[in-house]
Amino acid sequence: MSIPGLNINLESEIPVYRQIAEGVRAALAAGHLSPGLRLPPTRDLARQLGVNRNTVVAAYELLATEGVVHSHTGRGTFLAESASGESLPGAPAPGDDDWLTAFSSAVQGPSLERLLSAYRLAISSEGISFASSQPANDLAPVKEFSSAMASVLAEMGASVLTYGPMAGSPRLRETIAAGMRCGGSRVTAGNVLITNGSQQALELVFRTLLDRDNAVVLEDPTFTGALSALGSLGARTVGVPLDDEGMRPDLLALALERHRPRVIYVQPTFQNPTTRVMSLARRREILALATRYGCAVVEDDWAGELRYEGDPIPTLHALDGGRRVLYVSTFSKKLMPGLRIGWVVAPERVRDRLVALKQVEDCGTSPLLQEALQRFLEKGGLERHLRRVRPAYVERRDRLQNALDRHFPDGVHWTRPTGGLFIWVTLPGEVDSNELFLAARQRGVLFSRGELFHVGGSGRDTLRLGFGGVDPERIPEGIAVLGELIRERLSEGPSVAVDSRAEAMPIF
Amino acid sequence: MSIPGLNINLESEIPVYRQIAEGVRAALAAGHLSPGLRLPPTRDLARQLGVNRNTVVAAYELLATEGVVHSHTGRGTFLAESASGESLPGAPAPGDDDWLTAFSSAVQGPSLERLLSAYRLAISSEGISFASSQPANDLAPVKEFSSAMASVLAEMGASVLTYGPMAGSPRLRETIAAGMRCGGSRVTAGNVLITNGSQQALELVFRTLLDRDNAVVLEDPTFTGALSALGSLGARTVGVPLDDEGMRPDLLALALERHRPRVIYVQPTFQNPTTRVMSLARRREILALATRYGCAVVEDDWAGELRYEGDPIPTLHALDGGRRVLYVSTFSKKLMPGLRIGWVVAPERVRDRLVALKQVEDCGTSPLLQEALQRFLEKGGLERHLRRVRPAYVERRDRLQNALDRHFPDGVHWTRPTGGLFIWVTLPGEVDSNELFLAARQRGVLFSRGELFHVGGSGRDTLRLGFGGVDPERIPEGIAVLGELIRERLSEGPSVAVDSRAEAMPIF
Repeated sequence: MSIPGLNINLESEIPVYRQIAEGVRAALAAGHLSPGLRLPPTRDLARQLGVNRNTVVAAYELLATEGVVHSHTGRGTFLAESASGESLPGAPAPGDDDWLTAFSSAVQGPSLERLLSAYRLAISSEGISFASSQPANDLAPVKEFSSAMASVLAEMGASVLTYGPMAGSPRLRETIAAGMRCGGSRVTAGNVLITNGSQQALELVFRTLLDRDNAVVLEDPTFTGALSALGSLGARTVGVPLDDEGMRPDLLALALERHRPRVIYVQPTFQNPTTRVMSLARRREILALATRYGCAVVEDDWAGELRYEGDPIPTLHALDGGRRVLYVSTFSKKLMPGLRIGWVVAPERVRDRLVALKQVEDCGTSPLLQEALQRFLEKGGLERHLRRVRPAYVERRDRLQNALDRHFPDGVHWTRPTGGLFIWVTLPGEVDSNELFLAARQRGVLFSRGELFHVGGSGRDTLRLGFGGVDPERIPEGIAVLGELIRERLSEGPSVAVDSRAEAMPIF
Repeated sequence: MSIPGLNINLESEIPVYRQIAEGVRAALAAGHLSPGLRLPPTRDLARQLGVNRNTVVAAYELLATEGVVHSHTGRGTFLAESASGESLPGAPAPGDDDWLTAFSSAVQGPSLERLLSAYRLAISSEGISFASSQPANDLAPVKEFSSAMASVLAEMGASVLTYGPMAGSPRLRETIAAGMRCGGSRVTAGNVLITNGSQQALELVFRTLLDRDNAVVLEDPTFTGALSALGSLGARTVGVPLDDEGMRPDLLALALERHRPRVIYVQPTFQNPTTRVMSLARRREILALATRYGCAVVEDDWAGELRYEGDPIPTLHALDGGRRVLYVSTFSKKLMPGLRIGWVVAPERVRDRLVALKQVEDCGTSPLLQEALQRFLEKGGLERHLRRVRPAYVERRDRLQNALDRHFPDGVHWTRPTGGLFIWVTLPGEVDSNELFLAARQRGVLFSRGELFHVGGSGRDTLRLGFGGVDPERIPEGIAVLGELIRERLSEGPSVAVDSRAEAMPIF
């Protein structure tokens, strides 16, 4: 037997033995396991989950301390009868603490764990990290921003230290709208809501438009943060693969016909993680399909201004005249993530709802940060910053590409992005990126496993390399290690690699 | 006939004619109205809703432009057949834009509008406002905070302008934990999650513990922001009235027995809006009941340090040893709302989930603000600030009480709070606080209508006066106006008052 719904997460902050214990409790609470039932022997469950037997022993011991199970020497471990059986219906058992173990559906499920894993890696300072999605922290315009902050505090004083308008600073919203109008968008300050980064913008948009089990069509692979937000809402995610021009329109049409989604979510420019740029023709095609099927398009344009070559392509929002496209962007990647300032642009009627939900979620973004950013923008700080970082990113990207050319064996493929902060790598089928990740981490090199970005948990032949936040001097060294590990796995052949994976994956 | 589910909100940002149009669309989308149906004549609907007839005309015109209705002179206004009838099932009509009108359940319903109204008033700078829940903005420690901010930027630089640990700055969490340990709590930095104000803390807690239709027991009346967060989750709110010692334990026991809630939400100290302080005995009683029924207690302690008289009573969190109490607080009221920094303390297993959901919602609170606050706290800034504002609040409260004593007629009752930022007023039954609100606003005086705080929309014989953010010089003048308006209504007698309400309420 197995424990229904029990999944172990590779890099969760929660220790594996606690994950197992939680899984047993959850299965019991959900009625998938009956009180009194004998649990699988530790050896069997360890084999099923691919973990060390002692890990399962520790989980059972934790459950025993909590009275959830009891062990009989030689007979095994049994779920307690009292867990739901002994007390009379309606009479709560004293100390019935299931609120400590049975959480809402919003915080269950693998998508949340996936996001936590990805984030933990992204901010990790261990070794040489290509896992980060950070921009170049070493190039942050600290002095210029400090001076904007100081003058805002000196001039605006207490008025920026109290509650501000819920939709955000009118000045900052106008600056954002004006910038978008230069890109051809039809937008006023009244369409803009300031959020805490684009993560909040996406979450608010999805939560405003989607109820549990509503379908969303998106690129597969796509941004982990979007998958997690959708997972917490219980939305159904329908992934559509990409070709060189973006989301495949034939499969998109099929998905729309079959799933009738309320929302299509796309990153047309420097898509995370595949780095692809959607062609103008494809953009038009997707808008036409969205119109035909009456769904909203959520355009995530986190990297539009991080273009290093070629001419910009109009955003979906500009092409559509702001009618059915909700546009999401952020200052995190092009400026500084620590501001936690992003925004969403929506038709007024939708924006009203987004503002209401923003208020429910956190009662508004700090006016102080918004006004300091506005001051920085007014003084031309963003343009100066972009002029400084673009060449630096080009240098890091080129170094990374050169290192890949030199160290990665035949059969490995990667993209040559004209913007953004990532390179997307496809491995030969016999190399598993989860296993490679663990081996590389032991050698002090981090990357993002492809599985984190895929809708259905596939993508174990892919990985993402971020070059924005990595020390450029150490790029060749890190890629040399990865190249060596990939070569080893290729020479071992597929069957050995699969064996080693089963051993290596879950031990920590 | 009437439009099922159509409600007009008194102070919504959304114009009334648009609210009516939305209501018709929603009723149609929900199947409460059938395509082809004749809508009520404008005159009838105007009378039902208590609005001007032109407002209904404008709503019908808007719906006509959108093709939702069409008018036949002399026959009336009809819902379009095509809205759901004409096209074949499964084949979407071109331009079917129902994503613009049919929102998720999270952003439907009156609780959200209620929050928006309350907030709009709270930050309004019109006239003399007792509607604000702001602390004394004129006493904000701008200079001291500016210097903390400057030194953090100078010393920590880029490291506070990038992503930080998801649970918040470890230093700030330790400072918060240490402060709570002084109050008798068992807590470490590992139990703390930094949030964007206590609104986000409450929202995360509720969303982590509650699924749609789960019951929550709370004080009635209670904090509008909590009601809205619960409303957006579709939780069932079960209100328990208060006596002088807090939530009535006999009714609480009944509510627990009948509704089996997962959560009890309380503000034991200077409850918003009633200003009551829960006695020590009552705190113990509530914890015992929570233990007996196995539910979590969410303690909202936004005002604990704004005590002006008497000795502090231990928090529920301290009494309980942090076992089943989730503790929520904020720097907004005791320091500055513009920081948008609050926190929640929870057992580690629950905190893990809260952190995960925090990440989904906004990917973390700005490290810059957290470190600037931490620097300010380290330097003793909070103690100095509290020593300065407490006497100012006492002065404002006393001025307000004196003005009430002088200007309010017999039959009006109010609390004499020993802390917090509010006074709670009960009117004689024949005075309606919604109607009084509109009359007072015309005279340039604002307060918070009691209805905003009540679970079931009752409480129209109550109102809340905030004294924290009001100009103390103008308190007597504002209260004189309110007293005069109340006297007028008392002399008119109940029937006239009700008539005038029907006219006065919805016109704007």
